[in-house]
Amino acid sequence: MDPLILSARDLEFLLYEWLDVARFTDRDRYRDHSRETFDQLLELSRELAEKYFAPHNREADLHEPSFDGEKVQVLPAVKRALDAFAAAGLVGAAMDERVGGMQLPYTVFSACMAWFYAANVATISYPMLTMGNANLLAAHAAPDQIDRFVRPMVEGRFFGTMALSEPQAGSSLADITTKAVPQDDGSYRLFGRKMWISGGDHELADNIVHLVLARIPGAPAGTRGISLFIVPKYLVAEDGSLGERNDVTLAGINHKMGWRGTVNTAPVFGDGAYTPGGAPGAVGYLVGEANRGLAYMFHMMNEARLGVGLAATALGYTGYLKSLAYARSRPQGRPVTATGQDTPQLPIVRHPDVRRMLLAQKSYAEGALALQLYCSTLIDEQRSPTGEAEYTRASTLLRILTPIAKSWPSQWCLAANDLAIQVHGGAGYTRDYDVEQHYRDNRLNPIHEGTHGIQSMDLLGRAVTAGNGGALALLLETIGGTVAAARTTADAELGDFADALAQATGRIATTTATLWKDADPALALANSSAYLEAFGHVVLAWIWLSQAVAAHGRTGSFYDGKRAAARYFFRWELPRTTAQFDLLDSLDRTTLDLDDECL
Amino acid sequence: MDPLILSARDLEFLLYEWLDVARFTDRDRYRDHSRETFDQLLELSRELAEKYFAPHNREADLHEPSFDGEKVQVLPAVKRALDAFAAAGLVGAAMDERVGGMQLPYTVFSACMAWFYAANVATISYPMLTMGNANLLAAHAAPDQIDRFVRPMVEGRFFGTMALSEPQAGSSLADITTKAVPQDDGSYRLFGRKMWISGGDHELADNIVHLVLARIPGAPAGTRGISLFIVPKYLVAEDGSLGERNDVTLAGINHKMGWRGTVNTAPVFGDGAYTPGGAPGAVGYLVGEANRGLAYMFHMMNEARLGVGLAATALGYTGYLKSLAYARSRPQGRPVTATGQDTPQLPIVRHPDVRRMLLAQKSYAEGALALQLYCSTLIDEQRSPTGEAEYTRASTLLRILTPIAKSWPSQWCLAANDLAIQVHGGAGYTRDYDVEQHYRDNRLNPIHEGTHGIQSMDLLGRAVTAGNGGALALLLETIGGTVAAARTTADAELGDFADALAQATGRIATTTATLWKDADPALALANSSAYLEAFGHVVLAWIWLSQAVAAHGRTGSFYDGKRAAARYFFRWELPRTTAQFDLLDSLDRTTLDLDDECL
Repeated sequence: MDPLILSARDLEFLLYEWLDVARFTDRDRYRDHSRETFDQLLELSRELAEKYFAPHNREADLHEPSFDGEKVQVLPAVKRALDAFAAAGLVGAAMDERVGGMQLPYTVFSACMAWFYAANVATISYPMLTMGNANLLAAHAAPDQIDRFVRPMVEGRFFGTMALSEPQAGSSLADITTKAVPQDDGSYRLFGRKMWISGGDHELADNIVHLVLARIPGAPAGTRGISLFIVPKYLVAEDGSLGERNDVTLAGINHKMGWRGTVNTAPVFGDGAYTPGGAPGAVGYLVGEANRGLAYMFHMMNEARLGVGLAATALGYTGYLKSLAYARSRPQGRPVTATGQDTPQLPIVRHPDVRRMLLAQKSYAEGALALQLYCSTLIDEQRSPTGEAEYTRASTLLRILTPIAKSWPSQWCLAANDLAIQVHGGAGYTRDYDVEQHYRDNRLNPIHEGTHGIQSMDLLGRAVTAGNGGALALLLETIGGTVAAARTTADAELGDFADALAQATGRIATTTATLWKDADPALALANSSAYLEAFGHVVLAWIWLSQAVAAHGRTGSFYDGKRAAARYFFRWELPRTTAQFDLLDSLDRTTLDLDDECL
Repeated sequence: MDPLILSARDLEFLLYEWLDVARFTDRDRYRDHSRETFDQLLELSRELAEKYFAPHNREADLHEPSFDGEKVQVLPAVKRALDAFAAAGLVGAAMDERVGGMQLPYTVFSACMAWFYAANVATISYPMLTMGNANLLAAHAAPDQIDRFVRPMVEGRFFGTMALSEPQAGSSLADITTKAVPQDDGSYRLFGRKMWISGGDHELADNIVHLVLARIPGAPAGTRGISLFIVPKYLVAEDGSLGERNDVTLAGINHKMGWRGTVNTAPVFGDGAYTPGGAPGAVGYLVGEANRGLAYMFHMMNEARLGVGLAATALGYTGYLKSLAYARSRPQGRPVTATGQDTPQLPIVRHPDVRRMLLAQKSYAEGALALQLYCSTLIDEQRSPTGEAEYTRASTLLRILTPIAKSWPSQWCLAANDLAIQVHGGAGYTRDYDVEQHYRDNRLNPIHEGTHGIQSMDLLGRAVTAGNGGALALLLETIGGTVAAARTTADAELGDFADALAQATGRIATTTATLWKDADPALALANSSAYLEAFGHVVLAWIWLSQAVAAHGRTGSFYDGKRAAARYFFRWELPRTTAQFDLLDSLDRTTLDLDDECL
């Protein structure tokens, strides 16, 4: 049976008909690639996802990792899948050839990863974390650190973590207290506790490379005194051979509602369980310069945020496909105009309200995937710019779209999973079907890598105000290009959508100005989540109009589906934003002025 | 530690300051009661909920019922809680004295039950199902059936189920196929399979009374040929003593995402595992007249739908209280205007976006509870009418409000639980905190007892059109009374809310007329879910305005909280309906005309 992971046809449309990723093969960085290599890797990803990842998705949910006080055990199927993934060279697929990577365009890489996220978000998280870690080190670490730690990660022998949060410092990284004490040999000894660290211990790889935020004694307070360290589970000699066990242990593991297959840990550094070299503390190596740790980490975090958005998207997508298949096969009820029992029952896909739930899912999941891949093309333009102008343009757009690309799929592809359950009825509420797990798994995405609220502050407090609003102006101008393209089709419906989108982008501009007109951050930011949501829906309307323009003049049910989803989005979804812009324009003080004693 | 189940202060406000339930003690039916007895039962419910129900809520989620092929085992704590509940006489709290009940006003009973639902929705489901069963039989069964089956249920010795759905017939009850063959002694023998039957087997009681929908051979096709039967697990002699095991067994149990403590089963009737009296089939007794089963069942189902709404409400409410307590105690981050690390961290309740999430939950949960209790007063007016006019008015309002009272809390108190997780951040995603369980438990409510889509068809297809729209006219007139009352306060803000509500009710009237102007059910009903949602939000705005009127002129943080929640609802929530009414007025055909091949 087809595991209903993603749609290869939609990926083909998005990559080649809509985004024209083949154009990147003209660029130096991607010159060794061709549409053929892209398609081979996409097909390989699909095969591995179907063969190694999807089959244990439920099993890993039912049998989550266990910790006996010493070791973390995960299902053997997880290691088999990850070995196959690494053997195919996929850990380094998008990484530089200089560190052992394949230098695949990021857009194609994202499409490949979507197969894995949709098949088994928990298992693919181990290499995704590793890639984020390796990318950061490849950008900021010293050559010998790259040799000792990055290359083994690219080869799949070492895995990586991102050890940022602490029990008392989740969203507020300024408040971390883990200490890094300099040693005579240039290394450091770390002492402290971390929290919510995915992949913090396991037996899946030879070694685990923790990237740890910590303070060097005497460093400035707050965000300007945080440094970044490599802290391996096992020390690594110059020649790459593994040495002593480092003093990294676990206080315990967290038991989650979903995403259970990824072990989530509370690591402890330097509590004396081990004494590498006979001395206390976990051995760590400074990455780059002292006190610049947060800046390095944010380099990685933007990619991690896109990754969260892609994970959310993939879960929404697979849930859509599964509920569609269910709706086609489940007979129940009759047309509202049927007069008696003689009328045969309909497959539920024929009921308009079920079609609404399917079309909504399609608009959320396909829209989110399109946005993710569009953002990925901006990364490719950053990595292989045709010139300074393209680099700046891509970076600017990516900056303002990142909070949307993280938060919008996290909200709406979770909503898609909710609808996927509803289409299944009672069956969808049981563990016999996949959709309840997707819903549980997806609920993490509005929380990690910066909550919904954090994203909204980032968008309204930083991204749209940066550079005198240059990023916002560029985005609105870019959307204007799609509006113009839609009008030139002379298609009446596309013209209506273009008008609606032009009006909505106008509201973004005026509302943003209204919010900041008194330069009072407390008032401007009080309702930032409504701003994020309205902004996100306008961006997605743009993405849908752009897809509809690409589908214009093409016939067949695939293109009809794109038109139907665009129509749904413009008629049912975009109008939601009016009330949000109205609220924002009123500078509503309900939450700002609330005396919380009355809650 | 306070288990943070419900707010006794809010119940006091709703019952006495807002709904004046003390007035019912003037009526014959409730003459033995007084505010003192109400308060005693409310306090008793709170104590039992805290002592017996809340403590095993998580345990019952982690250790769900098991089935070994013979028996269903549940946690011992479940039986202890249910024994305490029954010993307090609460099974019959709202039932007639003639069947052993306490004849408590339904409104007070609902408030009592809210404590149990909020403390442990899964455990209280066993008696709730039993009460629904007993109420139906008390209304429609023969006296000897009442003696043999209802009285033991009221005493807590027997439990009951509602066995409606079948594997091939969930929402579409017209398609059930379970067969009931008449016997010479007036009894029947049943053969068939049911599905999704909660409490379908267990060892919690001496006996289980199944109420089963089935067809008598030769009965008319469809809904007009369905009869209702009592099918006990153990036969019951004239003197009430238990006899032979009846042929009711289980094909298996369902494993759900949440609400795990309530065993959900697939019962089989008459497959030959037992042969009571030496003959095949499960022995059943016809309730009332043949072929009227669905009508009887709908009698119960309306109460069951209110019960689902109350369960959803209670879960939303407890999640709100828990996330509020967390937000008051968790320090994280600083004011957006803070300039450095010297500023101490704030408890997160001080961040406007967290306050938004709390205020939204408050408006959903307290609003839903108010709606539930208002609907309960309509049941009391039905049960003890001052005259024909009151009976008709109460029944008419209850008819049109039931789909709202079922669906609105199911949607928005689930949304409240989503926000409760978000307030907790990563902690809320772990099983160390209650809110993730509430979210999983609550996800059932938009599905069972008629899905969201079914409720929307009921509202738009039947309730608002019945009697030439008389029910809708009455509801709008009733809302108009609250609008007028708000205006007479001469409070400017209440006046604004009254204007907004008057406008929104006007839109209900015009949109309803627009949808039905061509009397084309397929077109009118195509977007019924948007109608249900818009209608529900207008009803809740009314409920909030009414509470704000009751709070008018009163000082203190409790009343300020009511005003703040009303303000939130009018500013953030009611405006959502504009886009929905616009969509409906456009007679949008997107889902109706969709060729589902293009999905």
